[in-house]
Amino acid sequence: MTRKAFFISDGTGITAEALGNSLLAQFENIEFEKVTLPYIDTVEKAEKVAADISAAHHEDGERPILIDTIVNEEIRQVLSNTDALKIDIFSTFIKPMEREFGVDSSYSVGKSHGIVEATRYKERIDSVNFAIDNDDGARTKQYDQADIILVGVSRCGKTPTCLYMALQFGIKAANYPLTEEDLEKESLPDCLKPYEDKLYGLTIDPFQLAAIRHERRPNSRYASLDQCDAEVRFVERMLKKQGIDFINTTTFSIEEISTRIMADRGLKRRIS
Amino acid sequence: MTRKAFFISDGTGITAEALGNSLLAQFENIEFEKVTLPYIDTVEKAEKVAADISAAHHEDGERPILIDTIVNEEIRQVLSNTDALKIDIFSTFIKPMEREFGVDSSYSVGKSHGIVEATRYKERIDSVNFAIDNDDGARTKQYDQADIILVGVSRCGKTPTCLYMALQFGIKAANYPLTEEDLEKESLPDCLKPYEDKLYGLTIDPFQLAAIRHERRPNSRYASLDQCDAEVRFVERMLKKQGIDFINTTTFSIEEISTRIMADRGLKRRIS
Repeated sequence: MTRKAFFISDGTGITAEALGNSLLAQFENIEFEKVTLPYIDTVEKAEKVAADISAAHHEDGERPILIDTIVNEEIRQVLSNTDALKIDIFSTFIKPMEREFGVDSSYSVGKSHGIVEATRYKERIDSVNFAIDNDDGARTKQYDQADIILVGVSRCGKTPTCLYMALQFGIKAANYPLTEEDLEKESLPDCLKPYEDKLYGLTIDPFQLAAIRHERRPNSRYASLDQCDAEVRFVERMLKKQGIDFINTTTFSIEEISTRIMADRGLKRRIS
Repeated sequence: MTRKAFFISDGTGITAEALGNSLLAQFENIEFEKVTLPYIDTVEKAEKVAADISAAHHEDGERPILIDTIVNEEIRQVLSNTDALKIDIFSTFIKPMEREFGVDSSYSVGKSHGIVEATRYKERIDSVNFAIDNDDGARTKQYDQADIILVGVSRCGKTPTCLYMALQFGIKAANYPLTEEDLEKESLPDCLKPYEDKLYGLTIDPFQLAAIRHERRPNSRYASLDQCDAEVRFVERMLKKQGIDFINTTTFSIEEISTRIMADRGLKRRIS
């Protein structure tokens, strides 16, 4: 049995989608077909959505789920006439907040937000540029500006984690690959020594590492399980010896890796 | 008057934060001090949070706002004893969903989710690698695999938009910078011609472009308003002439730019 779930927004849809996914994940035995519809900002677009919802109901024989973050009352009205299970975040929570604060919300007066993002944009761009410029040990002379420097073997997830922290949180994250040479010496490369308090290790299950490397360079020594296993064991030993915190990324998403490192280090987001 | 708002989660905190920010944004005249606390997954950690909430109440003379997505009942209990305005997403919406589906949720049975992210991880890594490999016109021979190719002048937001689409949606996004030479010819570079249906333009307000470029190369011709203005006018004229859709990024966040392009082109997320 498949249920359709509609995540609908007059903006990006990111909030409706995040909340919807969290709620639906609590029902692991039900299969949902998820549809995100952003920028539903006119009555005409909403009428098209309402028709899609009715069609889905008719087709599946089950009411779709409707999760929305739409502000405009006229547009809401169109959707409220559909026969769906409505998860109405704003109307549920805004009223108690208005009572608490003693003021009307923009939601109640039907006003949408057009936030000029210039400052946030600049912070993000700076962090993204920093991550790219300082990726994979390409440059080490900006490490004094880094919030964090990730270290680990090639293909353990350093680059996407740095980029995620930059885009999502405005964190300046560099990364440095530990090579066989560093690992055999069992000491930190000289360029990292002045920044020991900024270092954070990533490790990974050798089987998964081999699978990832195999995609990049099939049947190479680099991708062999022996090689991956040796590198991971070396790196874990060195990180322990140097007293550098590390996280095993194998079963974590990039969101989890990033937020765990930040929580561990007390790093706060620089953009909101 | 400042109100403290606590976004609390036993996981990354990303959902609680996204929802909290959306709700609080409806009260534009109130200043909130936002605190995100992820990985509150033990009673001990929750007790520490409860103490922080009490301290905030005492300090500000106003009840803090508490927005949480915690599953475990014992941990919830600790937080429910605090004197805060509680925005309780799960307990509000899970019950009607259980009735609708006729089953108990993992939430009701107090089970948290440990999702192995391997498949999602691989899709994301592939897309991030694609964005990096195909950044700034570095390589054009993989354009047949691209979902979208962004074009625009230097520093108009192409790179962060590509990376965001890769990380958040698993979209393969390349980008190609339009140089003065391309612009003066008023025709597409040859390498883009076979992929006209994948092209999407970014433009930007010349003043903002000059400010961004000035950060990178202060007082250069590259950063001068005259130069920025000429490039932007050229690029907009060429995009119109070629019939290529474009978006002016000036007042949009990277989330908005990405989701608008995807909605416009009917691109669906490849990871959920």
